[in-house]
Amino acid sequence: MATDFVFAADIGGTSIKLGLFQTDGALLDKWEIPTRTENRGEAILPDVAQAISAKMSERKLSPEQVLGLGIGVPGPVDSNNNVFCCENLGWGAFNLKQRMNELLPAVANVAGGNDANLATLGELWMGGGRGYQSAVMFTLGTGVGAGVVADGRVIAGANGAAGEVGHMTVEPEESLPCSCGKCGCLEQYASANGIVRLAQRMLAACDTPSALRSMEKYTAKDICDLAREGEEMAGAIFDRCAHYLGLAMSWVGNTVNPQVFIIGGGMIRAGEILTDRVARYYRTYVFHPSKDTPFVIARLGNDAGIYGCAKLVLN
Amino acid sequence: MATDFVFAADIGGTSIKLGLFQTDGALLDKWEIPTRTENRGEAILPDVAQAISAKMSERKLSPEQVLGLGIGVPGPVDSNNNVFCCENLGWGAFNLKQRMNELLPAVANVAGGNDANLATLGELWMGGGRGYQSAVMFTLGTGVGAGVVADGRVIAGANGAAGEVGHMTVEPEESLPCSCGKCGCLEQYASANGIVRLAQRMLAACDTPSALRSMEKYTAKDICDLAREGEEMAGAIFDRCAHYLGLAMSWVGNTVNPQVFIIGGGMIRAGEILTDRVARYYRTYVFHPSKDTPFVIARLGNDAGIYGCAKLVLN
Repeated sequence: MATDFVFAADIGGTSIKLGLFQTDGALLDKWEIPTRTENRGEAILPDVAQAISAKMSERKLSPEQVLGLGIGVPGPVDSNNNVFCCENLGWGAFNLKQRMNELLPAVANVAGGNDANLATLGELWMGGGRGYQSAVMFTLGTGVGAGVVADGRVIAGANGAAGEVGHMTVEPEESLPCSCGKCGCLEQYASANGIVRLAQRMLAACDTPSALRSMEKYTAKDICDLAREGEEMAGAIFDRCAHYLGLAMSWVGNTVNPQVFIIGGGMIRAGEILTDRVARYYRTYVFHPSKDTPFVIARLGNDAGIYGCAKLVLN
Repeated sequence: MATDFVFAADIGGTSIKLGLFQTDGALLDKWEIPTRTENRGEAILPDVAQAISAKMSERKLSPEQVLGLGIGVPGPVDSNNNVFCCENLGWGAFNLKQRMNELLPAVANVAGGNDANLATLGELWMGGGRGYQSAVMFTLGTGVGAGVVADGRVIAGANGAAGEVGHMTVEPEESLPCSCGKCGCLEQYASANGIVRLAQRMLAACDTPSALRSMEKYTAKDICDLAREGEEMAGAIFDRCAHYLGLAMSWVGNTVNPQVFIIGGGMIRAGEILTDRVARYYRTYVFHPSKDTPFVIARLGNDAGIYGCAKLVLN
């Protein structure tokens, strides 16, 4: 019997990551093409179709050998492959499977999902969450996002908007608006930019000495480095950020009670100082049956998305 | 072809509700037996087995005609039918399907779930959520519980502890402990007892006149009646309770983005004054793609559980 293959296309705002997988999860090939967002992103899916066609020719793969194509989109996608809108690609609403079937008839089986959800599925399959069937992955970077997988299946949500933890209201009394228009979102305190804003505010409200006061501009990394070196003020800022994250994770824990929490994104470079504190606050605030949920670190980095795309097809 | 049937047993702390369904959802028969909790609840499942055997004889049903038995338990149950512990029945940990198969070999297909989750499934199948595939149902009574169903499947959680919204921390600064041992749980402000405690605290902190001040003892219903009659103070108490509920629902909305929220439990007798205010706070706090999620009222009352038990078998 000839081996079967699965294609993956994880579409980001600047580049599209493509992958060719065996069904056992072995990543045979990966490459990138630019994301052409001009003209409302009309070239993006034709570019994906062309890249996959070319790879099939190069590797002499017949349509029968290709089980399908999984596509990750940086915006809401429901479980019927409906894209609602995707501002950073220029896309409006359409059906992803239908459109890809027109562009690439050789690959009939197409499944799409939100990139954060698929990254979670990928980490569960071959990354930090390997061996578990249900997980929530928090990705802490320029924003705060999450993916929810229960019993091996992505929870996409009615409008593809499940896992939007970055816009959970953690401070109902906040008056400063978030980019989404609401006030007091988790992202306002716990993203890379959020923690800097939190630091500015906390520094302005006290006289505690801090090396941050003498820096013209500082980043999440600076705060984190100082906290790790033991500076009291940076530690307090970091602790506040961890408090909000742990609190939001406790709400998610009480809602879906996953087997594991996976933490990913640029901020994991902060290391144990972050995960340990977040886990401590999580345990303070979550209902007791969910207290022992383990916290693990994501392992697949930027490849989590393509792994999840492939797994979505295999599910 | 002979018609197929499904049995349902919704086990409560004082009585067990039993039902016989057709596969189209028609409830042919329902009856109750007492829950015998003595001796660590050892008689409960034998009583269920005996009741179903007797009904099969009475109706002359062959084992081939019975598709299965769904069982609701007032405690955590995972998707593999593992009961973890169930304090109000006296039960420890065991596998529900395995035990029932020993007791009632004539019905091989047994599926169990938590009662709140199954009530949600029942309301989706034949009640207030009919026509939807995913829902979160909040049950507001002496406690606050919820069930989560996504794409037609119950999200039970790793420890059967999904949907434990009553123990979401809504007031991290609270110093009064909840029955669960944590402080600041939703249930402390939004259950029938919680709103009374909230009223006592709010009345003690101000001089605003209220008919509640002259009552020796008042209930959630009294507060609600006064709020509906337009009393300012009762309205403010009610509003605070709705604020916490709407806030917690917004977190659930951001996590699983259901197609519909179903509100059930004794407090729905408060009517639109409750649901309208909760929905308004929900919309204030939730991320915009989930703002238009409809709110509906549960319709099956105490039968929701047996409907859900039957649907679990049919899934």
